[in-house]
Amino acid sequence: MPQISHKGKILPASAIRKLVPFADAAKERGIKIYHLNIGQPDILTPKGAIDALKHANMPIVEYTNSAGNLSYRKKLAEYYQKNKINVTENDIIVTNGGSEALQFAFSVCLNEGEEIIIPEPYYTNYNSFAIQSNVVIKTIPSYIENGFALPPIEDFEKAITPKTKAIMVCNPNNPTGYLYSEQELEVLGKLAKKYDLYLFADEVYREFCYDGAKHNSVMNLKGLEENVVLVDSVSKRYSACGARVGCIVSKNKEVMGAAMRMAQARLCPPYFGQIFGEAAIDTPESYFTEVSAEYTKRRGVLVEAINAIPGCFCPMPKGAFYTMIQMPIDDSDKFCKWLLEEFSYNGATVMLAPATGFYSNPEKGRTQARITYCLCVEDIKAAAKCLEEALKVYPGRTN
Amino acid sequence: MPQISHKGKILPASAIRKLVPFADAAKERGIKIYHLNIGQPDILTPKGAIDALKHANMPIVEYTNSAGNLSYRKKLAEYYQKNKINVTENDIIVTNGGSEALQFAFSVCLNEGEEIIIPEPYYTNYNSFAIQSNVVIKTIPSYIENGFALPPIEDFEKAITPKTKAIMVCNPNNPTGYLYSEQELEVLGKLAKKYDLYLFADEVYREFCYDGAKHNSVMNLKGLEENVVLVDSVSKRYSACGARVGCIVSKNKEVMGAAMRMAQARLCPPYFGQIFGEAAIDTPESYFTEVSAEYTKRRGVLVEAINAIPGCFCPMPKGAFYTMIQMPIDDSDKFCKWLLEEFSYNGATVMLAPATGFYSNPEKGRTQARITYCLCVEDIKAAAKCLEEALKVYPGRTN
Repeated sequence: MPQISHKGKILPASAIRKLVPFADAAKERGIKIYHLNIGQPDILTPKGAIDALKHANMPIVEYTNSAGNLSYRKKLAEYYQKNKINVTENDIIVTNGGSEALQFAFSVCLNEGEEIIIPEPYYTNYNSFAIQSNVVIKTIPSYIENGFALPPIEDFEKAITPKTKAIMVCNPNNPTGYLYSEQELEVLGKLAKKYDLYLFADEVYREFCYDGAKHNSVMNLKGLEENVVLVDSVSKRYSACGARVGCIVSKNKEVMGAAMRMAQARLCPPYFGQIFGEAAIDTPESYFTEVSAEYTKRRGVLVEAINAIPGCFCPMPKGAFYTMIQMPIDDSDKFCKWLLEEFSYNGATVMLAPATGFYSNPEKGRTQARITYCLCVEDIKAAAKCLEEALKVYPGRTN
Repeated sequence: MPQISHKGKILPASAIRKLVPFADAAKERGIKIYHLNIGQPDILTPKGAIDALKHANMPIVEYTNSAGNLSYRKKLAEYYQKNKINVTENDIIVTNGGSEALQFAFSVCLNEGEEIIIPEPYYTNYNSFAIQSNVVIKTIPSYIENGFALPPIEDFEKAITPKTKAIMVCNPNNPTGYLYSEQELEVLGKLAKKYDLYLFADEVYREFCYDGAKHNSVMNLKGLEENVVLVDSVSKRYSACGARVGCIVSKNKEVMGAAMRMAQARLCPPYFGQIFGEAAIDTPESYFTEVSAEYTKRRGVLVEAINAIPGCFCPMPKGAFYTMIQMPIDDSDKFCKWLLEEFSYNGATVMLAPATGFYSNPEKGRTQARITYCLCVEDIKAAAKCLEEALKVYPGRTN
């Protein structure tokens, strides 16, 4: 029997994925699970965009342009202009979700063995894309105590080696919910410029900023046009994670040229999803106002409930719909499994994403988990109650 | 300005792509172009499958299972059973088109620098996927004189080195239209077994076999269950190239486990395309009977017309909807460009895919091009007439 590749062997299964069989077993035992573990909103997808797809004339579902339909890219450029990001349809390649945009960026910008610096905790799947492209992720710690603010720029500078090729941020941040300020981005931009590095930004949560905070895009950093590569997606913006439509955006013609050759090899992004995505750009502002109000409410309920649990702490996230929580536990992998396998309260339990997967060294995440506020207020309250009761009886409680 | 990666630099732009600006310019001059260059059928997509998508209840376009919806995989297993391929939903991972299935197969089965043997001419995009995975394609020549039949097995055996990890066939073949016989596949299978190699098969044209010929799947090779990896797609089967729904199929649990971790990293295949794909499996047999009759007619018209042109030759393809033609020309890249830039006949010209891109050494394709019979009979006739007239006046004609 032929051996699979080394790459195939080391590709990580996500921490959440490892819990799925235990969640399935719990469901089979009739236990209700509150999913605080996954960023799948219960918010309705804009009906106008779904209807546009339903009413489209599609006699032949043809290949689209490898860069995405021109009409969609023009509409995307309009969307960015409206968000004060000055790009044209030629600066955009439509991708199979934000995931493919990340794959393009890693593969096109970094040679094998070259390094990308990312503040941790960070989105787990970056690891898989790094392995696929044979690039190395170097992390700079950020801390729960200050809400996971950007680490001191000196920490980044110290981490730079001759192999460093890029710095990456997710803004607003998954998993921390931190929103980088204009000043933080400028400092990062200066460092990228100084060392001639790419600056990647995953801005898929752009619309989810709270307390009147304004999102700042790396695309607006002056003099960084050749360095900046933006990764984006319709998934969260329109509660359409399954559409698998994202894009890579850059003013760097060489990067976009190479990304285009990767795009041509896989032929095109999805036809149906692009029709949906193009129509979604006309989603009325009222949709976002309502969604934002709803998330603000959920965030308040969740953060208050978590911080009321003895021994627990979570910062107030400023964007996206996640926060990290600190818990009085021995091991978050064990705890999250125990919640599914051995615990229930009023016939229900709660599923969390162990933070071990969000750190380069799992030890750093041993007492933390990522939780989302994608659920309705009532479910968030019930989930927090479950967590509180669980921590009262968990055998591995530490204080 | 940061440098792009070596990989980014060497990714090939397809030969067809290089011609696109000249085609666009010709169109601007008001010239009609017969596209014999691309496998984009003009056959209507099954209306039932489109209607199923239009009538689906889609309040939230959620992530699907990373392996694809269970209901779709079960339906796919039914489809394969009907085609005498004995697989279950657990042997299938739904992908972003056949392209992603190829990427998974290359990346999961081969280490960097390991080799995959493919008969040439072969589908150009395999090159890009090989570069992305740092694997090396070794080719065995097949020849137009015998319709590109499987080369002698000794040629394969001679090409095997300690680095060889896989053999790959596209069956029926793009670009040649050759359909491998049961015996040819068995011989290949034995060799794969003898040297403990993977056997990859791209079978996306399974439904397109002519003259009553039966398609043989590598999945049915006895004792090769751990070696065989199948790549498939809805693109050609249902004239739905834009759906971007394919799958990777294997009985090898280790391969599928690693492919699943790659699938999890990119989250899921397209939600809309899967609804379409699941419904498409219920497309009535009459659709395929009609399509097959239509392609058989087109094939006959094209092959007869080409072989009637002085100095031209093309074999009778047995499957898919391509054939390679031999022409009395100096250089197919030049000729194909000249057709678009300098030639027209009755206000029209013809676009071909230069064969240089289908061979490891472009020299081998200098006098050949790939043509498709995706167009209606009337257009095929007009295109062949254009080609005939062009060859009368082309300055680089060789005999």
